[in-house]
Amino acid sequence: MRIAISTGGGDAPGLNAVIRAVVLSAINRGWEVVGIKRGFSGLLGEDEVVTLTKESVRGIAHLGGTILRSTNRGNPFSYPRRQPDGTFLPEDRSDELIENARQMGIDALISIGGDGSLEIALKLCNKGMRIIGVPKTIDNDVSGTVTTFGFDTAVNTAIEAIDKLHTTAESHDRVIVMEVMGRDAGFIALHSGVAGTADVILLPEIPYDIRKVCDKIMARDAAGRHFSIVVVAEGAFPLGGAVHQLGESLPGQARRVGGVAELIAREIQDLTGKETRSLVLGHLQRGGMPTGYDRLLATRFGGAAVRAVAEEKWGYMVALQTPHIVAIPIEEALRELKRVDITHDLVQTARASGISFGD
Amino acid sequence: MRIAISTGGGDAPGLNAVIRAVVLSAINRGWEVVGIKRGFSGLLGEDEVVTLTKESVRGIAHLGGTILRSTNRGNPFSYPRRQPDGTFLPEDRSDELIENARQMGIDALISIGGDGSLEIALKLCNKGMRIIGVPKTIDNDVSGTVTTFGFDTAVNTAIEAIDKLHTTAESHDRVIVMEVMGRDAGFIALHSGVAGTADVILLPEIPYDIRKVCDKIMARDAAGRHFSIVVVAEGAFPLGGAVHQLGESLPGQARRVGGVAELIAREIQDLTGKETRSLVLGHLQRGGMPTGYDRLLATRFGGAAVRAVAEEKWGYMVALQTPHIVAIPIEEALRELKRVDITHDLVQTARASGISFGD
Amino acid sequence: MRIAISTGGGDAPGLNAVIRAVVLSAINRGWEVVGIKRGFSGLLGEDEVVTLTKESVRGIAHLGGTILRSTNRGNPFSYPRRQPDGTFLPEDRSDELIENARQMGIDALISIGGDGSLEIALKLCNKGMRIIGVPKTIDNDVSGTVTTFGFDTAVNTAIEAIDKLHTTAESHDRVIVMEVMGRDAGFIALHSGVAGTADVILLPEIPYDIRKVCDKIMARDAAGRHFSIVVVAEGAFPLGGAVHQLGESLPGQARRVGGVAELIAREIQDLTGKETRSLVLGHLQRGGMPTGYDRLLATRFGGAAVRAVAEEKWGYMVALQTPHIVAIPIEEALRELKRVDITHDLVQTARASGISFGD
Amino acid sequence: MRIAISTGGGDAPGLNAVIRAVVLSAINRGWEVVGIKRGFSGLLGEDEVVTLTKESVRGIAHLGGTILRSTNRGNPFSYPRRQPDGTFLPEDRSDELIENARQMGIDALISIGGDGSLEIALKLCNKGMRIIGVPKTIDNDVSGTVTTFGFDTAVNTAIEAIDKLHTTAESHDRVIVMEVMGRDAGFIALHSGVAGTADVILLPEIPYDIRKVCDKIMARDAAGRHFSIVVVAEGAFPLGGAVHQLGESLPGQARRVGGVAELIAREIQDLTGKETRSLVLGHLQRGGMPTGYDRLLATRFGGAAVRAVAEEKWGYMVALQTPHIVAIPIEEALRELKRVDITHDLVQTARASGISFGD
Repeated sequence: MRIAISTGGGDAPGLNAVIRAVVLSAINRGWEVVGIKRGFSGLLGEDEVVTLTKESVRGIAHLGGTILRSTNRGNPFSYPRRQPDGTFLPEDRSDELIENARQMGIDALISIGGDGSLEIALKLCNKGMRIIGVPKTIDNDVSGTVTTFGFDTAVNTAIEAIDKLHTTAESHDRVIVMEVMGRDAGFIALHSGVAGTADVILLPEIPYDIRKVCDKIMARDAAGRHFSIVVVAEGAFPLGGAVHQLGESLPGQARRVGGVAELIAREIQDLTGKETRSLVLGHLQRGGMPTGYDRLLATRFGGAAVRAVAEEKWGYMVALQTPHIVAIPIEEALRELKRVDITHDLVQTARASGISFGD
Repeated sequence: MRIAISTGGGDAPGLNAVIRAVVLSAINRGWEVVGIKRGFSGLLGEDEVVTLTKESVRGIAHLGGTILRSTNRGNPFSYPRRQPDGTFLPEDRSDELIENARQMGIDALISIGGDGSLEIALKLCNKGMRIIGVPKTIDNDVSGTVTTFGFDTAVNTAIEAIDKLHTTAESHDRVIVMEVMGRDAGFIALHSGVAGTADVILLPEIPYDIRKVCDKIMARDAAGRHFSIVVVAEGAFPLGGAVHQLGESLPGQARRVGGVAELIAREIQDLTGKETRSLVLGHLQRGGMPTGYDRLLATRFGGAAVRAVAEEKWGYMVALQTPHIVAIPIEEALRELKRVDITHDLVQTARASGISFGD
Repeated sequence: MRIAISTGGGDAPGLNAVIRAVVLSAINRGWEVVGIKRGFSGLLGEDEVVTLTKESVRGIAHLGGTILRSTNRGNPFSYPRRQPDGTFLPEDRSDELIENARQMGIDALISIGGDGSLEIALKLCNKGMRIIGVPKTIDNDVSGTVTTFGFDTAVNTAIEAIDKLHTTAESHDRVIVMEVMGRDAGFIALHSGVAGTADVILLPEIPYDIRKVCDKIMARDAAGRHFSIVVVAEGAFPLGGAVHQLGESLPGQARRVGGVAELIAREIQDLTGKETRSLVLGHLQRGGMPTGYDRLLATRFGGAAVRAVAEEKWGYMVALQTPHIVAIPIEEALRELKRVDITHDLVQTARASGISFGD
Repeated sequence: MRIAISTGGGDAPGLNAVIRAVVLSAINRGWEVVGIKRGFSGLLGEDEVVTLTKESVRGIAHLGGTILRSTNRGNPFSYPRRQPDGTFLPEDRSDELIENARQMGIDALISIGGDGSLEIALKLCNKGMRIIGVPKTIDNDVSGTVTTFGFDTAVNTAIEAIDKLHTTAESHDRVIVMEVMGRDAGFIALHSGVAGTADVILLPEIPYDIRKVCDKIMARDAAGRHFSIVVVAEGAFPLGGAVHQLGESLPGQARRVGGVAELIAREIQDLTGKETRSLVLGHLQRGGMPTGYDRLLATRFGGAAVRAVAEEKWGYMVALQTPHIVAIPIEEALRELKRVDITHDLVQTARASGISFGD
């Protein structure tokens, strides 16, 4: 048996722990493992395919990043091919990929990735490739799994930042608006905001009214609390207003990360007259040493993925359904994005503790 | 409505976050809250009862310890009373406690504690007192709840220690045996050992054979890995052997924390000839700033406890049944101690990755 | 003896440790201590003056912020007074301040602050007030002292961020430009950049050539290192170019923090074609729990300030001249801003290790 | 030019950062670098000698341990040689070592180590070998340098532990005695104790009277502070009493780490009747990721060592004489052990803040 493993999409702390668990579990079964570099690119001859040994994965469980590297590009169904005039046109190279995998003697692929990568995996499966998925998302927005690795680390990074801002905000009577990841789902903002005892939390799931936000800040001021911490998910948007357009970078332009926080900070300063600062956590949330929770979850995902290969559950992905790791059809996970349930006890408790969601 | 809150038993990171959530949620409902100092002692006139305001719980969510202080003594059903000769005899002061609570106008009590405190709470309930329980255990050994606050922090503290020992062990070709908490349940050892990529993990649930432990260490040595990390729960014991006697301190003696690690380290050094060191994490696991996970869980427990009071679910305790916080009869939670399920996927994955459980 | 203490200017981790050491040292001498809230404002009747006891400073040594709060405004020599038309005009209220202090029975003031506060302190001294200064600057730009508290914490915060960015940058072949504090002096950028093994470090002391920066990035690329980390001090500026104008906020506007990083990121992306991201650490550098180094230095400063009061060294400030804390004339410290000595062994070693300063 | 580098003695965070700076600085000068594994053993054919490239030192600056591994044995002047009967007798193999180095074409050696390794280095120098020393000691007890790398990390590890113990001690009215490293010099105990606001600090430099220790604890108790934290250096000893005998392990025995803390805890519990616990930090102090301070100092030492080679300063060691790294004769550094100056301002401030040294 010879299996392959690849990591696609944005960075998430825990990727290396998944790879390590897959490699050790597979080798201990007597299998061979190869690593496909940079998502699917390695299978298109655009990057390396390397043999992974126990030595390859030594001491990596606690490291951020991925030893296989990753990419947000490289969809084999619309792979960018350079044209004579220097521009790029998408091309379907999926058959080539499948043929390459066959020629390399790859019996099965464990594909670690977000919804983009999982969708590609499913389409390759439908064309006959034998794939097991491992969900990866910082934002915790994949359905069918209680959570994914990387999320707990991102939340703790955000909490640590809120803790740091708290003392400064309090000492200097400031409002600080901190922007965290979450384009469609506000889990990072909700979890870090409650744990960090923010005063206002703005989520994509609850459109906000800036006046309600300012009411909260001024009510605190009146009660002698002259500072406030606002945690905002990058996808939060005003009631009745359009979703903030953040967008991807155009070719040749540095992508703008953040924007919501600065905008909201200006509005708060204008409306309340209080000194207001903004901060965008950005890529700090994707990096660093995974927490214990994430190392464990990632390791369990890796071990379960190898068992799913042994059980030939092609087209399935591993998922946490507490207290067990199960395998569910990738299709099911992709059916809809998971978002914050605004009737959940965490939201109730947050409101009961006095946190405003700007609604 | 006037509710009381108390914290009993050993320390656990997150206690203050529970208290904060209870106080804010209750006050925002228009209730009054009083804090009973040092377990049930405050209700026996042996310690203070203080009014808790929003101000009392400001900025405490991220602090370890408990602003209400705690104690391992003070069971009102067998309260130690000093005799004329200076010795102490147990005395049932439960009626006095109930009467005191009545006179203080306490309508309900939220009792945060481990199985000892929960058992007392249940007995007081059975005598007519209105109590809601909040489970607290570092060891994660309470049934009916996926986990409790403090556990994640303890696991991360243990992982951090393993990470530190790893580099030294590797640089100096040493075996290091690290002892963590877990008298009856090996969750901390299992979780920290897997996340910290220990080589051997010894649990109360899997009696060990010291020769198997040494086999693993020597197999690694033969493969050029001249060091090993052994994580051992304090309650681990050898196959066929008796449980290690750790025991409580006799009066006038400092209690011995640890002991298993040192014993195992000696046996390993004798049997393998390899330089072996031991370390007991001890109280470090109970202290410090709670992780994000624990702050959230503690906050959710606190919010849910207040809702349980409103719903008059006397004799119930809040519990995590992912993804919800529910209320279950305290009786059910006390029925049996939760222990590591040795067929769980985490144990399977650990074995598949090459970790030895000494069996 | 009755002394006062105040904290002015921006936040710096360690302020509370200074306050604690001053209060305990003074009270243990039998003195009284009062805390002036919000810089000098408390002495102008614009904010509180509170008695500080041992209880007031319990458990604060490891907390960020300042229990006395602070402000960047409130210079008594040009205090903003509201005019009938709602605007503010500066007014000299220094005599009033001195008279108020006299009436409160304040024998001496320990003034903790940056160059702004120290200058005010010196001017008040020259008018007869008895003041000891304690230097405070995150940027480490005060002369006469090897370093000040808060700097080590800020450097460690920046290093932690670089560590997080490193794995993501490497996994995803990115250039990441991280902006740290340092308007006039590049100590934070230099120290965090070297310790975090950045590839390029841009300081206010060494004007940069963006082509040299890109040369370094492309040389790494050619050597198979497809990512780079650029650490830039907010005051860095291009060779021959003007200093970046960051400026203070106009009234009614949220102040723009950062800007250099984004600008440089765009230039790099344009010139190299490599995907480039920017991040501004901002206020994270001012907050949080002080490191051991800063807690110690702050405590030593506090203890030394009380001894300086006993020795009546008015107009002096405490300073670290390793291994001793000494007292030097404030005047001397203010003579010139301390900046990075570009011939220092740290810069030499950085260059020798392959770090580019863009020159 | 072809230089060698080796690491000897106990672990210290920052070793890898020294190695990295040496390798990069040397290679960028066009030199070759070889790494001697396990102290001097590699030069006696008992372990490897490896070529170090830029690739060898990639991403190691922030890792604890040493990629060259280390050992406490292996003095070439009394190297243990196995006798026919299985015992070991010391043998002078220094000439063999020097000859081996010559044959390997090693022009100079950078030897990183504690006083043991530095002494060996000096003796080899006196026999004609060309050596530059880099001091390494967790305990900060090497003369001639303000501090060494690893010390700041150890202090921060100890402070973090004290912070954790604080909340538990306070919540549960306990006395906790924590033992840190420092056989002859109490720097770790003093620095961590002051920064962590311990109540009692016991150093090898100040013999303690256990009754004075208990007086402090009971005075706190009387003032309503029912807990106390005692930080004790492993080499602390009672007034008039003998130094605690800790000793090295006999062959075949696990060495006992700790002992002082447990002994003192028992005495305190006996004399005060207060529940007292002990904890030995042990090897946690030697491991883990170096702090920013230590990464910088280690990097500066590495860079300076290469410059010292270029300047042919044989028999010298690099040292921090703030703000510069200088080179001093190894002989001078070895003349006497550095110990805590008990008249230093840090000790004064500690006393002034109410800390007892048990005297």
